[in-house]
Amino acid sequence: MQNILLHIAYDGTRFEGWQAQRGRRTVAGVLTEALQTMTTRTTRLIAAGRTDTGVHAVGQCANFLTHLMLPPAAFAKRLNSLLPEDIRILASEAVAPHFHARFADHETTYRYMVENGVLYPAYRHLFFGYDYPLDGAAMQNAAELLLGEHDFSAFAQYTESETTVRTLSEVSVRREGSRFFFTFTGNGFLRRQVRVMVGALLDVGRGARTRTEIEDALQTGADHPLFFAAPPQGLTLVEVHYREH
Amino acid sequence: MQNILLHIAYDGTRFEGWQAQRGRRTVAGVLTEALQTMTTRTTRLIAAGRTDTGVHAVGQCANFLTHLMLPPAAFAKRLNSLLPEDIRILASEAVAPHFHARFADHETTYRYMVENGVLYPAYRHLFFGYDYPLDGAAMQNAAELLLGEHDFSAFAQYTESETTVRTLSEVSVRREGSRFFFTFTGNGFLRRQVRVMVGALLDVGRGARTRTEIEDALQTGADHPLFFAAPPQGLTLVEVHYREH
Repeated sequence: MQNILLHIAYDGTRFEGWQAQRGRRTVAGVLTEALQTMTTRTTRLIAAGRTDTGVHAVGQCANFLTHLMLPPAAFAKRLNSLLPEDIRILASEAVAPHFHARFADHETTYRYMVENGVLYPAYRHLFFGYDYPLDGAAMQNAAELLLGEHDFSAFAQYTESETTVRTLSEVSVRREGSRFFFTFTGNGFLRRQVRVMVGALLDVGRGARTRTEIEDALQTGADHPLFFAAPPQGLTLVEVHYREH
Repeated sequence: MQNILLHIAYDGTRFEGWQAQRGRRTVAGVLTEALQTMTTRTTRLIAAGRTDTGVHAVGQCANFLTHLMLPPAAFAKRLNSLLPEDIRILASEAVAPHFHARFADHETTYRYMVENGVLYPAYRHLFFGYDYPLDGAAMQNAAELLLGEHDFSAFAQYTESETTVRTLSEVSVRREGSRFFFTFTGNGFLRRQVRVMVGALLDVGRGARTRTEIEDALQTGADHPLFFAAPPQGLTLVEVHYREH
């Protein structure tokens, strides 16, 4: 048996998210089908994190166990010949037998892209077009509150059984002309957490919310998101960084 | 009668170019249909320049004559409510009765985008993924040859009846990380001219052609393109600048 780790990029536009679901075109569904064709067996694919409908990836990671004793790098090449053009395997490598892409200690980086000027149709699947004038310094200032360990229950959808405490090691807001780029790195993210954090920062950027409201939401928590979720198309899973594998 | 000038942006991915053709989804075809719905008449739409299948626009211009005496800005709003999301009218304005979007004196700017690193699926409709190592300085150096008035017959597809002399007022190559941005401004472009000029510059960038070969091709001309045409998805019509209207 080999344990193979895939580095995966996809255009989320025409996928109903990562998670395989009968009758829906999902990234895991399409990948699992290609793996079955290649290995002639049903293969269980474990992703570092699931992405929602419309969310892109340039550095998703997923692993699977296989009896196929090909050189590890050959998996990327063969899978790419079987996959549609909106998924590409960037690399494949052998990892330790018990490595698990989800449970192995890792940090994930997400980027969110906002077009604050004219959103041209050719860019509509990559940027969120947001019209209100934005104060970049106010957003950066509020973003710093999110750094470190917090209860993010007011910034996500979650089930009662899961912990809502997460640690962010990087939060930044960068402006390039009319575009804003938000970057978040953390040891895990709750469902919709990145999109709600971006929504909160945009609200601060246009003056509809204050830095104090972000601070309060982090301290008090909530059983539902207290800010709007920025839409999925602006979001990209950029990198999964494993401490060891 | 009013003569209305539209400023148009589109995602070329799912269009078979600008020019209306029966049974094909083209930008002019879809726009003309929306104009017919809005004005209840068959309307002739005249574009500054035609774009090929897969080519995008953020600043195409086209005009039409109409009996509809709405405020000029209302055309953009109403058309957008009728158009699919891959075409947007950025603005509509009234122009002089005899203004003709194609024959009026103008310059057009095109941009071509190359990804010289990993081309991720989410960006495949915007960039040409080109793997060879590229020498940016060599490309900029060769690009300068294209400036000014030349016979571009070796860099385009053309019919015997048309002149192949054009004037370029701007040619530039800019690098940003692993990406190269080519910009061309001129008083007119032959069919495929921008894509073949980019192909020639990329050939110089990877060392397969020399600056002298570009110089020779400009001097001798040819009855067919002497360089490969970079594919359409990297190309965007950025701006049409009319001297007066």
